Amino acid sequence: MTVVDLVDGVLAADTRAVARAMRSVDDAAPGYLDLLKGLWPHTGKAWILGVTGNPGAGKSTLCDRLIEAYRSRGSRVGVVAVDPSSPYSGGAILGDRIRMSRHALDAGVFIRSLATHGHLGGLSRSARDVVRVLDAAGYDVVIVETVGVGQDELEVTHTAHSTLVVMAPGMGDEVQASKAGILECADVFAVNKADREGADGTVRDLELMISLGDDSILALSKMRGHGAHGAAAGFVGAGSGARAAGAGDEARWTPPILKCIASRGDGVTDVVGALDRHRAWVEGTAAGRARRKTRLAEQLREALREALIGAAVHDLRECIEEAVEGVEARRIDPYTCTERLVEAFRAR
Amino acid sequence: MTVVDLVDGVLAADTRAVARAMRSVDDAAPGYLDLLKGLWPHTGKAWILGVTGNPGAGKSTLCDRLIEAYRSRGSRVGVVAVDPSSPYSGGAILGDRIRMSRHALDAGVFIRSLATHGHLGGLSRSARDVVRVLDAAGYDVVIVETVGVGQDELEVTHTAHSTLVVMAPGMGDEVQASKAGILECADVFAVNKADREGADGTVRDLELMISLGDDSILALSKMRGHGAHGAAAGFVGAGSGARAAGAGDEARWTPPILKCIASRGDGVTDVVGALDRHRAWVEGTAAGRARRKTRLAEQLREALREALIGAAVHDLRECIEEAVEGVEARRIDPYTCTERLVEAFRAR
Repeated sequence: MTVVDLVDGVLAADTRAVARAMRSVDDAAPGYLDLLKGLWPHTGKAWILGVTGNPGAGKSTLCDRLIEAYRSRGSRVGVVAVDPSSPYSGGAILGDRIRMSRHALDAGVFIRSLATHGHLGGLSRSARDVVRVLDAAGYDVVIVETVGVGQDELEVTHTAHSTLVVMAPGMGDEVQASKAGILECADVFAVNKADREGADGTVRDLELMISLGDDSILALSKMRGHGAHGAAAGFVGAGSGARAAGAGDEARWTPPILKCIASRGDGVTDVVGALDRHRAWVEGTAAGRARRKTRLAEQLREALREALIGAAVHDLRECIEEAVEGVEARRIDPYTCTERLVEAFRAR
Repeated sequence: MTVVDLVDGVLAADTRAVARAMRSVDDAAPGYLDLLKGLWPHTGKAWILGVTGNPGAGKSTLCDRLIEAYRSRGSRVGVVAVDPSSPYSGGAILGDRIRMSRHALDAGVFIRSLATHGHLGGLSRSARDVVRVLDAAGYDVVIVETVGVGQDELEVTHTAHSTLVVMAPGMGDEVQASKAGILECADVFAVNKADREGADGTVRDLELMISLGDDSILALSKMRGHGAHGAAAGFVGAGSGARAAGAGDEARWTPPILKCIASRGDGVTDVVGALDRHRAWVEGTAAGRARRKTRLAEQLREALREALIGAAVHDLRECIEEAVEGVEARRIDPYTCTERLVEAFRAR
């Protein structure tokens, strides 16, 4: 099958062509860049929704509910699962029977899992490009599910127009999230399993962190570390009144915090509503459009970085080996050595 | 003060010169590369110990005990804390009084905290080079304390000769650690707060993960995710007998798992002993030396990557802005665009 055939197959939303194109892109197989160039003019229509959170927060259950909600509007939904604990990918890798999503037999839903390791050019490169295949194939909403651990997984959310962070009460997710930089990428928070003890505390902690900004991370983690939750709660009382729940004004989006119980479907409509409002903000306001452009610039910088490294490692393989020998034997310092490698790369 | 003066000051272990050199290196201030080149011939003597783990695991308390142990042998100890929850850095950044380590007034101990954001060329670059300053200043052991979250923090451990992973029972740290790739970097595990319920379970989980290797991550996270701890325990029974606790044969190092209660000092001697054995393995076996060389190669590749990106972002600033405009307006696809940027960088 030629690249042109494959492009045509994807554009016709032929399931086997889509699967094949995604595999080719994921593996960075020969010709994958031509494939992506061919698909590019047909992308840009999908709404890309990142869903992240720690294992056990209930991301997959909530994703199932989101798929249901979008399907009921007639949207076609693509899912890219980058999470070893996801039932979509976990089962497959373990060689178990996949715990099928109830949407797996729906032709309007395409689910694809990515391994979290061994991607040529990085996980975020792979996810970004696999999402573009689904976009070109006409999926209206593409959900990218990642586990909230690691810079790599986090970068995946740069691909998304909206990012939903899912947390469960009593897991210390707030502090973890803030440290891992998840807070900065969150557009909407869902506190799932809201019938559990501590749900209101999780909501308050998030409100505190949002109102204080980056510094709050330290404050909260210190208070948590010392077990002084009472102090945290007192703190919250002062700060949380300052923002209207879920409000996003023209110039600035404040992430709303929604409680839900995904397993029963409770509160899911509110989560979907918040995501809709975020989409309207991104598409309808100057600030939202500026943010979209910033994301595009970030993606391009990431792509440039990956391309540079790929080319350098390829072209300089022998030089790098020699350099390691030289530094190990202390014949040359690593700083001079690195400068020479950069020069060698540019001179080729 | 000239670079030569600063190099001399560091080599004389002058505290103010060391502090100034570290700040210069951390900030990538003008001339910092010359400084590092000047220090390089005097590095390579320190033993670099990475200590990582989630917030609340008790890393800082255990570090305090390790400092005490190394000081009692007469070693000079440097500490680089890359962790917003660390009392070393947390207090300072918050503007609180620093919760002083009881070693802070000991002239044989030098503690320096790095912010976790905003490092030119990345956090691991900064940590790696700050460690080299301490090495050149004659600190025999340099402890790098990082929080076990995020790729950036994890890369910091590549700097270390030995990496100690600290966990506390009942926090789900095992699964988190495995997902974040901490498992691969661990040379010794300390299960701290071992008087808490679940300590033996944490030890068994770690044994399971070590014996199964990478696949165990999925197995364990799935079992955890479904709450089937009974099944996990059954699993362990079969696997854990296969390895002798703490054994490291010539060719391969199997991370020992030690229980301790750092707050009381219990079990700390065993942790120090395991770290000593690991050091002997790295220094005394062919496999250990090979690993050290691999780490060196990784560091050099990281440095090359950072240097390439730094140079590209600097040289191509305007081109990148134009490229973003072009892709946003869909005049050009991002793949062709990236290829052209790489060409432009090499042609300069």
